[in-house]
Amino acid sequence: MGAEVQDVRRSSTTKRRVGRPPLTKDPKLRILEAAARQFAQKGYESSSLGDLAESLGVSKAAIYHYFSTKQKIYDVIILNALSGLVNAVYQDVAEQSTPYDRLRAFMTAHARYFEAHYNEFVVMLVGFSGMSVLEMKYEAVRLRDKYEDLLRSIIEQGVQDGSFAQSTAVTARRGVLSVLSWMARWYSPTGTKSAEKIALEYFDLLTQGMNPRMP
Amino acid sequence: MGAEVQDVRRSSTTKRRVGRPPLTKDPKLRILEAAARQFAQKGYESSSLGDLAESLGVSKAAIYHYFSTKQKIYDVIILNALSGLVNAVYQDVAEQSTPYDRLRAFMTAHARYFEAHYNEFVVMLVGFSGMSVLEMKYEAVRLRDKYEDLLRSIIEQGVQDGSFAQSTAVTARRGVLSVLSWMARWYSPTGTKSAEKIALEYFDLLTQGMNPRMP
Repeated sequence: MGAEVQDVRRSSTTKRRVGRPPLTKDPKLRILEAAARQFAQKGYESSSLGDLAESLGVSKAAIYHYFSTKQKIYDVIILNALSGLVNAVYQDVAEQSTPYDRLRAFMTAHARYFEAHYNEFVVMLVGFSGMSVLEMKYEAVRLRDKYEDLLRSIIEQGVQDGSFAQSTAVTARRGVLSVLSWMARWYSPTGTKSAEKIALEYFDLLTQGMNPRMP
Repeated sequence: MGAEVQDVRRSSTTKRRVGRPPLTKDPKLRILEAAARQFAQKGYESSSLGDLAESLGVSKAAIYHYFSTKQKIYDVIILNALSGLVNAVYQDVAEQSTPYDRLRAFMTAHARYFEAHYNEFVVMLVGFSGMSVLEMKYEAVRLRDKYEDLLRSIIEQGVQDGSFAQSTAVTARRGVLSVLSWMARWYSPTGTKSAEKIALEYFDLLTQGMNPRMP
């Protein structure tokens, strides 16, 4: 299963079948993208491999060539989104040194990744708890833990060096995760405010609070 | 549909059918409670009216007597949870006068209601966006808006009287909704920390921030 996820970007060729339109470039990626769009818009239950095949202009068999079930496509979308998110936040945080800057980088990296992979993210948020293939579920939990561990270490560093109040450490970590996870509720792909801007406003709120600023 | 929701607490008697165990007291309520437990634990798709009937010790026909479909049970659970939540927060907030106390009351009332109706709440969070019967969906959106309007007015009052920074008003409202909505991720019905305690910690975080307190 893990291999199935990592293989996504490699399988860019497919055997041509007589009489059927071919899935030309990156067929697995194309399937996953179209499926994420469909899942995000219609939900898992109302989505069908038949509709998916139609939207891609291919036969259902062409889909089955890559994925044996709808559930597997769903799970792969979630794992890819999680693994991309983990990479994005680790990369951006590594470029910063102070806890303040690292926390800001964590939040903006999350927001930018979310914006760039909106459909996949919606699928992940809705579907994470319902993942049914155990091996993939374990991998998803491992990735989520890795993501949350980074945030924990940033806040701990900030408590150590006096940037953040010790008393708020656990609540702050959960607060950051809550506002980022719930961002899909406020962010609109067609709206005017970028996800990064929303994340920066949350960063200010969580670090400084709603209290009027000291003059 | 609206009537179906309000009727829940009234329909405490049912015709006895020969040869079948009766749904003795508040049969609709018993069905909704058991269904919420099943939905929260197994998800919508994996839940069946057959299992539900079995867990209640009644026939499937006894369920159908009250609810024509699984979806309808699901939607009624969501509407009941939302309407109970709205009542709870309006009641507690009305007892307070300052924006600070009103915001705290909003958050703790939400938390207590969440704790007391944990299964129903989980169903609501997962199922809200997937409500399929339009009339019930409209009612759910109306209730959610009413709930969010109260929070908006509390924060606006706080901005007016100088309790809260104007610049954080919109973000703070979304932040409050995010941490409360995402609470199911941290709260455990078998854990040691009450939902109200978690809400109070969030209240401190959101009003005062992660910054170390001024001495």
